Formats: sequence, structure tokens, C-alpha cells
Amino acid sequence: MSGSGTDVRHIGILLFDQVEELDAVGPWEVLASWARSCPADGWAVCTLARDRAPVSCANGLCIVPHHTLDDAPALDVLIHPGGQGTRPLLTDDEHLTWLRTQRERVPLMTSVCTGSLVYAAAGLLRDRPATTHWSSLDLLGKLDPSIEVRDEVRFVDDGDIITSAGVSAGIDMALHLITRLAGPDRARQVERDIQYDPAA
Amino acid sequence: MSGSGTDVRHIGILLFDQVEELDAVGPWEVLASWARSCPADGWAVCTLARDRAPVSCANGLCIVPHHTLDDAPALDVLIHPGGQGTRPLLTDDEHLTWLRTQRERVPLMTSVCTGSLVYAAAGLLRDRPATTHWSSLDLLGKLDPSIEVRDEVRFVDDGDIITSAGVSAGIDMALHLITRLAGPDRARQVERDIQYDPAA
Repeated sequence: MSGSGTDVRHIGILLFDQVEELDAVGPWEVLASWARSCPADGWAVCTLARDRAPVSCANGLCIVPHHTLDDAPALDVLIHPGGQGTRPLLTDDEHLTWLRTQRERVPLMTSVCTGSLVYAAAGLLRDRPATTHWSSLDLLGKLDPSIEVRDEVRFVDDGDIITSAGVSAGIDMALHLITRLAGPDRARQVERDIQYDPAA
Repeated sequence: MSGSGTDVRHIGILLFDQVEELDAVGPWEVLASWARSCPADGWAVCTLARDRAPVSCANGLCIVPHHTLDDAPALDVLIHPGGQGTRPLLTDDEHLTWLRTQRERVPLMTSVCTGSLVYAAAGLLRDRPATTHWSSLDLLGKLDPSIEVRDEVRFVDDGDIITSAGVSAGIDMALHLITRLAGPDRARQVERDIQYDPAA
């Protein structure tokens, strides 16, 4: 049963002030190009932010969100990117409360890079394995010592929560998401479409 | 001597209707995070488009450009991404003329994915080696049979023109750019910062 209550299931990528660009746009590219090229799979991808104003990213790119937190469709998957902008979110009660509410409604919560720090601050990673950007692994363990912090992995799939390593690892996590949601053939197709083969 | 005539040298990433998101934002992430973290290197990165309106990308992301073609700083490096939006550009005389003018002014012209098709249509790749997205290699050779089309490479550095393979290969090309502009240590630093290590 879809969380959206319609035939189309929704993946939402959160945007916020000082979000790291590739944390958001890496998964966007993977997932939105899949949704566009395979409409029969029944998935849609959107971005959402606190308000409709263009979001200033960590390195100065400016992205216009599709939805606010209030008018976004019910999500089946949430992606929380990282970036310098996660630091104020760690103590932002409104944001942490919103995340805990999402946890009750959204079947699959995922993060890229330091997005997992915010999940940890919201208490969502208690007694779970998780990862983050290599430079924030210590902080992840400090935010919640019950977390089993994993390094040297691209992502950690713990069922209803997936956390990724730094920045570009969000691309790998998004390809893994397609494998989960639509099968490995579809993931390989997208990987080939975006020519994601850095070892070539 | 800088093309900008100031102490700061400028890298411009072109945006246009239906540009492929990661073609633009992959190099943006690599280059803008470098410029931000190493200001003493003296580089700045911006996006530019025909006008100031938010640009609708190929998969539906919406990016606000920093400059128009007219008010952008003089560029030392131009990056032309690809995407479905390149198809109308192949016969867009205004755009092709603008590109030929840029060629006279910009020391280093680069492309990602099918951006090289537009360079080919503008005559910029005559008698040169070049590459593009794997699915457009044939078209590249048809647009200009004098091009030595290269496959199975991430990018082709032909001195004052660099062309890249599809989508994510723009990340590799941008890291190579940093090697050229600031040395291999700096490129490795950025690679580590964005945790670009898909084989890990």
C-alpha cells in the first residue's frame, strides 16, 4: 500500500539552506531520470523545503523547490541530504519534530552524507547501524552513542532507514534504492544511462 | 594572464532549458567546493543562462542562474553540459554564433555528455579527438566527420577543448580540470572531500 494513497508513489528530496549540492542532485539525477524514463514503474520524485523561496546551497547554487513541507505529497521515501546547513538543524526543534512525524508516516527514510547527523539528533538512529561523511563519523557516534557507526561503506541499508557516506555516495545509495524499488535490471539501466562507471 | 582581467579567474557553467541536471551539478560540486575551500587558488564558479529566469532541467529540477550570457564575467573556462535540451541548440544559429564568439575569448572550452554535439555543430571540434555520451557517439561523427570520435574514455583533453563522456563523467572531467588548474594534490583533496570513490 502506497503512503501517498494514489497510484503514484513519491520520493521527496529535502532542500534546506546550505544543503550540499551533489548530496541532493546526485540522487535526484538517478531517481528522477528513472521516474521519467520508466513511468510505468509508478514513481515520482520532487524536492521540498520549508517555503517556496529558492534554496541557497552550500557552494552557492540556487534551486527552486517543487513543494513546501506542508503541500508536498505524502512520501513513500524521504531523502535527507547533508552539508554545512545540517549543523543548525541538529538543534532545530521544529525540524527535528517534523522528522519524527515523518518517521511515523514515511516507510523509508534515507540520508546522504551528514544528513544522518540530523536523523541521529532526532533519535531516529537509536540502536541502529549507520554511516555518514568520513569526517563526521566521530560526531555521529557522539550524537547518539547507541549507533553502530560504520565506516568504509558507501551506504548502510537497515531496512526502513538507509544512511549514506559522503556526497557522491548518494548516487550509489540512489541506485541501490532503485534496486529495492524496481529491481536490479532497472538500476543497471539507469547506471548505464548516466554512464556511472568511474573505473572505466 | 587571466581572461577576466582581474585577480579572480572564472569558470562558467552554461544552463539551458532541458539541461541534464548532473551534467551541470556534478562539475559544479567539484569546482565550486574547490573554489570555496581554497580561495587563495583564485578561482570562482558561476552558472549562466540566456536570461535570469529559473532554468527547467531535463528531469524537472529548477535552477536559478547567477548570470545571463550578457552580464557574466569574462570566462577562463566554459563548461557546456548536455541533455535533451542540446537537440534544439544544434540548429540554433544564435547559440552557435555565441559559442564561436566564446571560442575566440575563452581559453578553455569544455563539455559534458552531449554538450560536445553542440560544439561539433558550431564547428569547434573540426579535426579534433572528442567524445560524448555512449548513445550519441555516432551522431557526433555525423555532425562533423572530421572529428576523431573516441569511446570508452571518461574525457578527451585536447588542450584548449576538453569533451567528456555521459553525465557522471563530468565529475571526472572536473577533477581533471582541477589537476590542470591547481595540481593533482588539490584534485585529490576535492575527490576525498566529496568521497568520490565508487569502488570502495
